[in-house]
Amino acid sequence: MPALIECVPNFSEGRRPEVIAAIVEAIRSAGAAVLDTSSDADHNRTVVTFVGAPEVVAEAAYRGIAEAAQRIDLTEHSGQHPRIGAADVVPFIPLRDATLADCAALAHRVGQRVGESLGIPVYLYDAAAQRPDRQTLPQVRRDPFELLRDTIQTDPTRAPDYGPNRLGTAGAVTIGARQPLIAFNAYLDTDNVEIAQYIARTVRESGGGLPKLRALGLLVNGQAQVSMNLTDFRVTGLYPALEAVRREAAKLGAVVTHSELVGLVPQQALTDAALASLGLPVSVGGLILEQRLGAQTGDYRPIPFE
Amino acid sequence: MPALIECVPNFSEGRRPEVIAAIVEAIRSAGAAVLDTSSDADHNRTVVTFVGAPEVVAEAAYRGIAEAAQRIDLTEHSGQHPRIGAADVVPFIPLRDATLADCAALAHRVGQRVGESLGIPVYLYDAAAQRPDRQTLPQVRRDPFELLRDTIQTDPTRAPDYGPNRLGTAGAVTIGARQPLIAFNAYLDTDNVEIAQYIARTVRESGGGLPKLRALGLLVNGQAQVSMNLTDFRVTGLYPALEAVRREAAKLGAVVTHSELVGLVPQQALTDAALASLGLPVSVGGLILEQRLGAQTGDYRPIPFE
Repeated sequence: MPALIECVPNFSEGRRPEVIAAIVEAIRSAGAAVLDTSSDADHNRTVVTFVGAPEVVAEAAYRGIAEAAQRIDLTEHSGQHPRIGAADVVPFIPLRDATLADCAALAHRVGQRVGESLGIPVYLYDAAAQRPDRQTLPQVRRDPFELLRDTIQTDPTRAPDYGPNRLGTAGAVTIGARQPLIAFNAYLDTDNVEIAQYIARTVRESGGGLPKLRALGLLVNGQAQVSMNLTDFRVTGLYPALEAVRREAAKLGAVVTHSELVGLVPQQALTDAALASLGLPVSVGGLILEQRLGAQTGDYRPIPFE
Repeated sequence: MPALIECVPNFSEGRRPEVIAAIVEAIRSAGAAVLDTSSDADHNRTVVTFVGAPEVVAEAAYRGIAEAAQRIDLTEHSGQHPRIGAADVVPFIPLRDATLADCAALAHRVGQRVGESLGIPVYLYDAAAQRPDRQTLPQVRRDPFELLRDTIQTDPTRAPDYGPNRLGTAGAVTIGARQPLIAFNAYLDTDNVEIAQYIARTVRESGGGLPKLRALGLLVNGQAQVSMNLTDFRVTGLYPALEAVRREAAKLGAVVTHSELVGLVPQQALTDAALASLGLPVSVGGLILEQRLGAQTGDYRPIPFE
């Protein structure tokens, strides 16, 4: 079977629909299947999810980056989210018959082309990183666009992996390879952001909490929120992460009112959560009707139960 | 698209592998896809799950019933589970592009053929029932084989819907149509079966508990078990059912140690449980990667995450 790669680029435009449509059209024109487009006006940011064979995804990512560079001027951009470029972050993710190394190679190829043909500085991150200090996105994005305009020329640690040491109106782009990431937020019954911040520090890996879990405490529309990234849901899944938040919240007299997912979620992550919450053994994953049916007939479509 | 029907016959044989294999082979010979075979030696009973187009499933069910009638002699059968025949219960379930009424019509067709060609008494139940006192399986199976040998001749309420008023060594068969049923058991940290029985009476629909939930308290391998049937998981799902058991158990100082599923489970039932346990809105069901991918590419196969 041909390999299937996912790409989830973040663009620094969440307000002008015609610009977003043009970027999505550029991605589609390469033959990629666009699965989702989510724009946030406050963050002035759009996340596009698309998939395809490696060569299709590489071309689609390049066209999306080129279109964004033409249409988005970072010197006129405002928004709450940290960003360094018009096309800000472009991760490649292996879905089927592909490895993380395949995606890292793809990131290098696209990065080189973007640097040479578009004249945009490129930083490689995560599994595509060439330097140990570029493993994580916060490391790469340390200096926002306004600051990076100076430091890219003066600070050797800010030198790009491809392209010139100089920022134009399109800024720079971070390209990388990683496993699927799940963005998962839990809301608390309080407007005290310090409670969310304390919980986040306690549950996340960097605070000695759950492995492969990142967390931040935020205030969103007047409600404290523990904002989480699960960087490997087979290590720490949705249900264990939420249970940890619920436990820590209870110690502080707070309760999780509801939660939300941002972007798409693999079916397996929901199945894992179901089994964990129901106290069922992992082997139940082998008892799913649609999977048994698909294995026999090749038809894996979900059965529509009303 | 052609309709897809599921059939989940229960046969009164769980000990002789060659008999079970012959029955499964008879079902397969009609072109049906056998998804699962589960045998229980204590209950001396086997449940086969198969699917196919309506005419294929009707033929496969008939052949399975005929094979079981030849090979299983109820006068020599022992086992804990209530039963009236070699092929004991044969439900048809609509999966795709089919209705419950389609399945009821199928049950009638197969029932008539079994009665006339095999000379086996047939009782129609659930959505295929022709009498109000045959809506549920316990009503139809009120008299076990040994008793039914007399009552089928003497008690007008035991007259079969098709076939003779007389039991041979194959007994009788109950054929019907229903929605998918999920068999789900929760184990308690006690050997006191009365606790399980009390919880079962409280949570089930007939006791004023959750709609579309049946429950019994049992002692299984020295552990109290609340044995549940979810007859419509979109009305009462796995997670709400288990939460009700956990709540009632807590009142009695007991705890659910783990749970188990018997037979196959629709993917949607696990997705529903994940969303309920995570406090996520139902709309998240639209954010599943494989579903978005399938809708665009037709490839709904699960993405294999290690």
